[in-house]
Amino acid sequence: MNNVAVEEMVKVTKVELKETISSILAKVGVPPEDAEVVAEVMADTNAKGIESHGIRWLDIYVQRIKAGGYNPVTKLEVVKDKGSLLLLNANHGLGQVAMVKAVDLGLEKARQNAVAIVAVANSNHFGATCFYTERAAKAGLIGFACTNSTPLMAPWGGMDLCVGTNPLSFGFPTKGVPIILDMATTAFARGKVFIAERQGTTLPEGVALNKNGEPTTNPKEALEGIMLPAAGPKGFGLSLAIDILSGILIGSNHGHHICSLFGDLDKHQDVGHFAIFINIDDFINPEIYYREIEDSVSRMKSSRLAKGFTQIFMPGEIEDGQRAKNLAEGIPIPLPTWKTVQELKAKL
Amino acid sequence: MNNVAVEEMVKVTKVELKETISSILAKVGVPPEDAEVVAEVMADTNAKGIESHGIRWLDIYVQRIKAGGYNPVTKLEVVKDKGSLLLLNANHGLGQVAMVKAVDLGLEKARQNAVAIVAVANSNHFGATCFYTERAAKAGLIGFACTNSTPLMAPWGGMDLCVGTNPLSFGFPTKGVPIILDMATTAFARGKVFIAERQGTTLPEGVALNKNGEPTTNPKEALEGIMLPAAGPKGFGLSLAIDILSGILIGSNHGHHICSLFGDLDKHQDVGHFAIFINIDDFINPEIYYREIEDSVSRMKSSRLAKGFTQIFMPGEIEDGQRAKNLAEGIPIPLPTWKTVQELKAKL
Repeated sequence: MNNVAVEEMVKVTKVELKETISSILAKVGVPPEDAEVVAEVMADTNAKGIESHGIRWLDIYVQRIKAGGYNPVTKLEVVKDKGSLLLLNANHGLGQVAMVKAVDLGLEKARQNAVAIVAVANSNHFGATCFYTERAAKAGLIGFACTNSTPLMAPWGGMDLCVGTNPLSFGFPTKGVPIILDMATTAFARGKVFIAERQGTTLPEGVALNKNGEPTTNPKEALEGIMLPAAGPKGFGLSLAIDILSGILIGSNHGHHICSLFGDLDKHQDVGHFAIFINIDDFINPEIYYREIEDSVSRMKSSRLAKGFTQIFMPGEIEDGQRAKNLAEGIPIPLPTWKTVQELKAKL
Repeated sequence: MNNVAVEEMVKVTKVELKETISSILAKVGVPPEDAEVVAEVMADTNAKGIESHGIRWLDIYVQRIKAGGYNPVTKLEVVKDKGSLLLLNANHGLGQVAMVKAVDLGLEKARQNAVAIVAVANSNHFGATCFYTERAAKAGLIGFACTNSTPLMAPWGGMDLCVGTNPLSFGFPTKGVPIILDMATTAFARGKVFIAERQGTTLPEGVALNKNGEPTTNPKEALEGIMLPAAGPKGFGLSLAIDILSGILIGSNHGHHICSLFGDLDKHQDVGHFAIFINIDDFINPEIYYREIEDSVSRMKSSRLAKGFTQIFMPGEIEDGQRAKNLAEGIPIPLPTWKTVQELKAKL
């Protein structure tokens, strides 16, 4: 954000946050073990400081479950299991539940077959992509994950919504903090635009166009217009590639056919997820892998600094540090979000 | 380029271009069938209008072959063949020769096993990444390819070179022109900086820092400094991921250890390539895939235009159009490049 507003925060323990999420989901028919999974993904995301992808989505999940757009019970079905390939169908269930299971099946498959490609069709919003690649990295495997989503980006040079902010994430194990890249293919995550709108701050230049195709830094105008891709045609190309892999290729919904998460509450979004897992041991002696990663990271961390920087961070390192701090001191949740969640809990 | 210089061009047929390349490579010990492969990759790249990755590299390849940095005979060795995984060693041979073979082996493997992950260690510069993914797409499979390269990018916020412009490419078959995304993870390809230096033009803002860590649009200063990543930390993260996958993971050279292509002519660069192939038929009825891709492309192509644009192009579409034109009218080669090649031919 260009100008960061000071917003009142409530500090909540991870246990309290998870219990709140679980109890709300349980009341709308989500089985306890599934509610626990969603609670863990959400609470971990807030703990990492990624407020845009955490508990703020709970309200809309509940609305969609009640309206029928989400199936509260996630029946994850194996569509195809052939060598390194595993195709799954989430049957309109919860994205987090489907994807955590998909990751665990994928890790097992990669351990047996060196590599695994796992795709989940007919799923829903799964939160922050880094949760899944970090799960792989912490198990000692390399993970890649991406998902398609509600169309918010136009083709490069265009104005009609056609692909989502479609994020991608890589997770690489190291002997220390795993290297976790998590990036939207838009210049800016849509979740952050909502936060800017709520806080009354402006957006950076070059991240959005208004509904007339003109640049805007006003979050309200951006929400009525389109998000611009990261690095112009490159981000658009990546988003399109993700839409094909996690949508078209696996028979899931794609592009402009995906309905809004906030409107059409009774419709299935049916987004898809696509992931790759790599068993390091099948490629190289893991000792060499860890030695060379360490060599690479230490070289980068000790680099001379460019003007305006005070420290070099590896991808995922800032979030890892935030999490350690927040788990010790309490996870900060914006007061408006916490109020909404408490009202939701009282109402159900 | 901000201001494009008008440069004298020679128009050459593809046959003439290929014969010139082949005959030069043959004279430094490259077997005729391998020389033919390099010639095809280079000539096709120039035909597509990607001058930065075409015949302008021939001179340095020849210098490196003569000095011992390149092995003129590419002995591609199978290190591991397990299910969907194929690990290859190019033994310091020509990147194009190794990678074309790797793609063909990978396509065959994906047809048998639904998916294939193929990596090539101890290789060299392989030209434009899109050649390999287009080869997959034209065979009806989805292809992904990436490579690491000479360090030209610093970690985000840093000044010391640690990773290359590390490009990645996706190729998706369609019933018409395949969708081919090919992008450097730097904001700007290094090859284009050389062209700007030769033409005396300036670089766009935000693509390079000078040796003191300050922004520059001067190509000479950029060549002494560092290239900035595409979309800041996102491009850096992608480049690092590519360096791990095509370097560290497969026991190939990586990061700051990779010597310059232009200095250390007798040293092996030993870069690596990493590719994924997907047999569509194992995921979905191809008729549905092609129908939905067509639906997606036609929606995007007919999008309303943003301010300043006159047409929407799919990734790879401009290059495909250039190629059709250039194959009919002759492939334009800048006069200085053509002179260097002719001198090289006369000298050998």
